Amino acid sequence: MKEFDTICGIATPIGEGGISIIRISGSNALDILNNIFTGINDFKVLDMKSYTMRYGYIHDAKFNNIIDEVIVSYMKGPKSFTAEDVVEVNCHGGVVATNKVLEAIIKSGCRIGEPGEFTKRAFLNGRIDLTQAEAVIDIIRAKTDLSMKSAVMQSSGHLSREINRLREYLLNTLALIEYSIDFTEDDEEVDESIPIRVSEQLNTAINEMEILLKGADEGRIIRDGLNLAIIGKPNVGKSSLLNILLKEKRAIVTDVPGTTRDVIEEYINLDGVPVKIMDTAGIRDTEDIVEKIGVEKSREKMDQSDLVVLVLDSSRKLDNDDKEIIEKIKNKKYIVILNKVDLETKVDEEDLKHLKNIIKISATSGFGIDDLKIKIKELFFSGEVNTESLIISNNRHKQALNRALENCNEAEKRVKLNEYLDLISIYVTSALKSLGEITGAELEVDLVNKIFSEFCVGK
Amino acid sequence: MKEFDTICGIATPIGEGGISIIRISGSNALDILNNIFTGINDFKVLDMKSYTMRYGYIHDAKFNNIIDEVIVSYMKGPKSFTAEDVVEVNCHGGVVATNKVLEAIIKSGCRIGEPGEFTKRAFLNGRIDLTQAEAVIDIIRAKTDLSMKSAVMQSSGHLSREINRLREYLLNTLALIEYSIDFTEDDEEVDESIPIRVSEQLNTAINEMEILLKGADEGRIIRDGLNLAIIGKPNVGKSSLLNILLKEKRAIVTDVPGTTRDVIEEYINLDGVPVKIMDTAGIRDTEDIVEKIGVEKSREKMDQSDLVVLVLDSSRKLDNDDKEIIEKIKNKKYIVILNKVDLETKVDEEDLKHLKNIIKISATSGFGIDDLKIKIKELFFSGEVNTESLIISNNRHKQALNRALENCNEAEKRVKLNEYLDLISIYVTSALKSLGEITGAELEVDLVNKIFSEFCVGK
Repeated sequence: MKEFDTICGIATPIGEGGISIIRISGSNALDILNNIFTGINDFKVLDMKSYTMRYGYIHDAKFNNIIDEVIVSYMKGPKSFTAEDVVEVNCHGGVVATNKVLEAIIKSGCRIGEPGEFTKRAFLNGRIDLTQAEAVIDIIRAKTDLSMKSAVMQSSGHLSREINRLREYLLNTLALIEYSIDFTEDDEEVDESIPIRVSEQLNTAINEMEILLKGADEGRIIRDGLNLAIIGKPNVGKSSLLNILLKEKRAIVTDVPGTTRDVIEEYINLDGVPVKIMDTAGIRDTEDIVEKIGVEKSREKMDQSDLVVLVLDSSRKLDNDDKEIIEKIKNKKYIVILNKVDLETKVDEEDLKHLKNIIKISATSGFGIDDLKIKIKELFFSGEVNTESLIISNNRHKQALNRALENCNEAEKRVKLNEYLDLISIYVTSALKSLGEITGAELEVDLVNKIFSEFCVGK
Repeated sequence: MKEFDTICGIATPIGEGGISIIRISGSNALDILNNIFTGINDFKVLDMKSYTMRYGYIHDAKFNNIIDEVIVSYMKGPKSFTAEDVVEVNCHGGVVATNKVLEAIIKSGCRIGEPGEFTKRAFLNGRIDLTQAEAVIDIIRAKTDLSMKSAVMQSSGHLSREINRLREYLLNTLALIEYSIDFTEDDEEVDESIPIRVSEQLNTAINEMEILLKGADEGRIIRDGLNLAIIGKPNVGKSSLLNILLKEKRAIVTDVPGTTRDVIEEYINLDGVPVKIMDTAGIRDTEDIVEKIGVEKSREKMDQSDLVVLVLDSSRKLDNDDKEIIEKIKNKKYIVILNKVDLETKVDEEDLKHLKNIIKISATSGFGIDDLKIKIKELFFSGEVNTESLIISNNRHKQALNRALENCNEAEKRVKLNEYLDLISIYVTSALKSLGEITGAELEVDLVNKIFSEFCVGK
């Protein structure tokens, strides 16, 4: 295990609450606590046993003033979150109380950990691999039960086991090639079965990679949510549609930071899939400067979205504004909503015949909303949303797996062409390296730092 | 100890963070955990020792799915926060993770505690008295180091000890009266020293109550903050004054919920005293409807404030708008700011001569700001802000103490008038009751419920 300095950080969310936890990790954790803690009955902190807790007080360094009443706990490394000695101080919640205790801990001899530094240590100390570390942040940020479940699976090592199994195949392939090259060098007879066996191994790996990658788009959506932009002319019922979708939301998850004032963004939970709905300004040609900006934003959101929901008013004939928007969505995944079907239909069937995914709804009565939901799932999930099997949800994993797959395909092609096995081994080695990047078995320091810098402080 | 049902609640603030704590309290706490937890090495939850922790997983009730990876801890009653058996589940932070684990715990057989119910149980079970329970919420909501320190003192029982000492005096007084009445009934000779000794005891109690009450206004300000309204005509430099005060703030504490859009409210930390500064719309007679509303709000804020800071522009002569405002502040505690002293002075000394607490400043250069701060403290604190002695900071305590004092004064007056001792005992008993209300020794159920309902859920 590597030796780092001792760090501390607030592990709970900031705000008013009953309890806050301040975590201290490193070989001095217990000494640091000892400088500022008094228990009852002359209790000696340094005698504390692992996985036990004590009630007492945090003082300033001179033991002049009580800062807060606390419960402290101790987890001796390597059986702790970071695999180092960890002390947790449970103090009163609240901004001032938590900061006062944190200040006393820092003064007692450690520094505040950087964002993700606790989890990074767990990784660098070998307690968890990179996919598990990344799962920690996915669990914290999970937007629905399903995304949580997927992250928990990854956290308990499901993905790592799968990736390690793939690496096993490729290592065996390399061993076979190595063995064959040795023979060739000794001028002995080459075992002709070897290219066949190499090819078999590669094909097994390729198949499994393809299965994993097949679910990756669904996985990305389960983790990050589906971006859905509601677009259309002014006054066709876009905001009514948003409202009726939100009314049935089972979980608002978070307010999205940086939400622009002009575009409303809200999460709904669609059978476990987090859907971020963006209600945009009505799109039309306009001379009004403020409205122009809104329309520009709508167009941007449309470009960023995974799915465009175009709302048309079925109680009127389509006009040029409608037709112009229809032209724009053709290269996107889209659903066309014919709203206001409770009114007399005036829209011309002819204008719609080149469009697919048309759903009739009434945003006021709720008619057709279920059809819309079913259609959304149909467009992104093959069959039911899978809750049991392993899903690749992280784009970094997907890209690395894609690179591994490409190299295996290349190797396999060259085996078929009877190329030299030592040339082929280069591709297999590249594939192995890409797989290693997923679990962190092979990874560059810069990338590790980048990954952990996206964590929050105290984790 | 009373027997309650088992309750649970999220004890940490809600939001994204590394860890959340869910607390379970009641005699079934360990059984509830046992239904949904698996540790490692066949660990049996029911064998768990008090003040120890375990690593493991929370499952759904059928043990089909892992919900989250957790560390659980156990504190056997009465050595716990509520004095009941308490289990704490430390799960991953984040909204979904925390709610999923909470849901599993509820399904396993308990209910969510009401706001303050954990602390209320600590009180009802006799672990802490009412002043200590109230201190819990004061610690959580503390806005500065000083208010935190005052709350921690109260939490560790300083106030209770003082109140109990006062009750002791009054109980002794009652005993003396009782003794004297017994004698009278037996027709024996009355001990003439008794009224003198009763009077002495009462005077001791009265003195101590007066000392406690003397600091109560300061205490209230340290706990709740000082409401300071900046008022004045438009364009005299009100917002510049706010800005220069905020620039030097050492702690922004919380955003104030319900802040109106028209009145800016910000906390600054003035040597440990939280000062809520309200910057108001300029006050003047106006026909504009929106502006009228702003001006009306300014007037309201002025009425609610502890201190009005009137800003005048010293580079102009006072006009009727200024003079009208000056009339309005005369019945309030006020400070008059002569702003823009870096410019040529044109204000007429004559117009100011009936005003006190005049401070010259330049909100652009910062000149005079320290004088303003010193003046604010002078007006509310006799001498330095006291950090060591006990402070009555809670209005409920102040009122009860005032009632006790009134009754003692009444009793003392009647002793001097040689009234019957058994009449006097009625006043002493009333005083005792008032003191009992502070610590909760005598308190009505409704009031207890009201006090705890102001707590947050999970505390």
